[in-house]
Amino acid sequence: MPGGGMMGKGRLEAFSDGVLAIIITIMVLELKAPTSPDVNELAHLWPVFASYVLSFVNVGIYWNNHHHMFHTCNRVNAAVLWSNLHLLFWLSLVPFVTAWMGETHFASLPMATYGVVLLMAAIAYYILQSRIIRDQGENGLLARAVGGDYKGKISPLFYALAIPSAFVSRWFAGALYVAVALLWLLPDRRIERVLAEEQHE
Amino acid sequence: MPGGGMMGKGRLEAFSDGVLAIIITIMVLELKAPTSPDVNELAHLWPVFASYVLSFVNVGIYWNNHHHMFHTCNRVNAAVLWSNLHLLFWLSLVPFVTAWMGETHFASLPMATYGVVLLMAAIAYYILQSRIIRDQGENGLLARAVGGDYKGKISPLFYALAIPSAFVSRWFAGALYVAVALLWLLPDRRIERVLAEEQHE
Amino acid sequence: MPGGGMMGKGRLEAFSDGVLAIIITIMVLELKAPTSPDVNELAHLWPVFASYVLSFVNVGIYWNNHHHMFHTCNRVNAAVLWSNLHLLFWLSLVPFVTAWMGETHFASLPMATYGVVLLMAAIAYYILQSRIIRDQGENGLLARAVGGDYKGKISPLFYALAIPSAFVSRWFAGALYVAVALLWLLPDRRIERVLAEEQHE
Amino acid sequence: MPGGGMMGKGRLEAFSDGVLAIIITIMVLELKAPTSPDVNELAHLWPVFASYVLSFVNVGIYWNNHHHMFHTCNRVNAAVLWSNLHLLFWLSLVPFVTAWMGETHFASLPMATYGVVLLMAAIAYYILQSRIIRDQGENGLLARAVGGDYKGKISPLFYALAIPSAFVSRWFAGALYVAVALLWLLPDRRIERVLAEEQHE
Repeated sequence: MPGGGMMGKGRLEAFSDGVLAIIITIMVLELKAPTSPDVNELAHLWPVFASYVLSFVNVGIYWNNHHHMFHTCNRVNAAVLWSNLHLLFWLSLVPFVTAWMGETHFASLPMATYGVVLLMAAIAYYILQSRIIRDQGENGLLARAVGGDYKGKISPLFYALAIPSAFVSRWFAGALYVAVALLWLLPDRRIERVLAEEQHE
Repeated sequence: MPGGGMMGKGRLEAFSDGVLAIIITIMVLELKAPTSPDVNELAHLWPVFASYVLSFVNVGIYWNNHHHMFHTCNRVNAAVLWSNLHLLFWLSLVPFVTAWMGETHFASLPMATYGVVLLMAAIAYYILQSRIIRDQGENGLLARAVGGDYKGKISPLFYALAIPSAFVSRWFAGALYVAVALLWLLPDRRIERVLAEEQHE
Repeated sequence: MPGGGMMGKGRLEAFSDGVLAIIITIMVLELKAPTSPDVNELAHLWPVFASYVLSFVNVGIYWNNHHHMFHTCNRVNAAVLWSNLHLLFWLSLVPFVTAWMGETHFASLPMATYGVVLLMAAIAYYILQSRIIRDQGENGLLARAVGGDYKGKISPLFYALAIPSAFVSRWFAGALYVAVALLWLLPDRRIERVLAEEQHE
Repeated sequence: MPGGGMMGKGRLEAFSDGVLAIIITIMVLELKAPTSPDVNELAHLWPVFASYVLSFVNVGIYWNNHHHMFHTCNRVNAAVLWSNLHLLFWLSLVPFVTAWMGETHFASLPMATYGVVLLMAAIAYYILQSRIIRDQGENGLLARAVGGDYKGKISPLFYALAIPSAFVSRWFAGALYVAVALLWLLPDRRIERVLAEEQHE
């Protein structure tokens, strides 16, 4: 039996890669080619382009973290499969809110809705992580790797703060989204470090 | 020769994962971003959103079951390849009926058509399962895992009931679709159990 | 070095599976949900639906044959990589001609253009097959498997016949397309047979 | 630990294959089927078709080079993961500029913008290559394979030249794009040669 008794993780990774690849790519369909070759028309697209960049980075971060997280486990059970689909569901809404935010030039309600989707995705990621840790046991590789996990705890707090802020100052809400993205762009060396220690033992 | 004489299952899984990932993700393209940042416009999208959630869960269930089913076999023949394409054909119509159902606010004919597509997919899944069992033999892993297979038998019955019901009460038809989805969301421990027994032998 | 000196075939298969999965699935986007729940509107979609079914089967046949063909080789060189991209190029035009054929209710010019795209794809497939055979040598697994290859020779003839026929009788051209699809739907046992003999030796 | 201490490259390849497969295929959605079966309407599509062919070849070249490059390494670190996402970002803009170029019949500004996107992608590719070489060490397989790398150095120069040229002669800019594509279409035997030498040692 491949994967040691429970399901192997190969197809979960392949399916998630497929869904994330599609999510990250179909967002670009919102960048509709102007009908004229006018520079003003191109400039007019900047809100759509800016929201595309932000969401590309966010989905890229999720793919990156997903990659690291599943690197620590080599089997999955039904709870993990469904928690993963739950995460993909919220991420699948990113193109919708990205388009809405860009087309309304970062209006308050779309800005807040963007935060709701990211908050739900962060919670779904946390649930998925917990299911894997539960399966591996408290001393499993992932439990040790996430450790204090300050990024995973700060991100939903920032999103929760951004949602009401969007109705007061949408630029402050936007700054919070950018701040979370930058926080994660700094490479997460924790899992790589634990893996490296693992090898030296 | 990899896979032991017949085709390996790797590409069938990869292709199916690709098609299912695309099906589950392109449905979100129907959730068109409103042109104004108005909360009423967002609220107006609820039928499209609700039908998206239902279909996301349904396609997720198919992916999950497909994953479990092919976990039990490590080779595929021509009959299995074509039965799998037949299943993917019916599932590829899900985005179409989902959009129609959502945009017509769950009118009777689209509700019934949704049932027809799900019924055909359920029948295609049954045919695929039978082809694999025939190939493995009556004592194969899958034959033992599916056992009585009450879920696989109840689902098409519910769909067959929902199709005419949609013209009498479309909410009753909708309730049947939700009921089948919930039935499957309860994790299918049968295959995991047989695999676990396999290991202990 | 994996794959024995030249490139392994894994990524070529994965990329081709991805492209074919997208081609087969985006065609369904042409099946636009009617705005009303009217049975006449659904009926009006039949040419789009019929051309979708035909193209789904054709792309499915290509995937199937591609799967069988690469099963016989375990390394690829640059000529094979580019011949494969050439095949994918022509297949990527299938959604375009399918949509055109369906929306014009099988008019002559779109019917002929459909034949041109299928003919070019058949030629591209033949070139790809030749590159693999050249790489494996005349006694390679694929050379023995394709043998007389009457299907591979009849298909382009039928397409070449269908192209001018479309301007005389588009139904005759359509019948030729259906005939080729049916020819291939009959499972190709040649490669499976050679593989089986291989094992017994 | 699979992959020897750092991340395995499998998912990076799978995700990149997915994104590139989608990029190369969604471009064909710009080839919108004419509403009438008129030969003039088909002829009218030639700029869209020509820009599709050019971009198909360009993305195919990137996939091919990406394939060769990652063939030389069997582990990836965080810097490689992010450099790869950076490359995919610029390539994801190819469908947008392709559509704009085609729909405006190769107007100057879209022609120049096409060059900007290709230039940024070429720079991103160079950064990614440098990250892998740094990880492998100066005597690594990739460092030896790229050697003088005249193609990788000429391409961005041609793109940088094409950008201002587009405002003087857009046909000259187009000729530069075609020239770079042809340069790469000639198969890159360098990596294959180093691999072959590797085997004979």
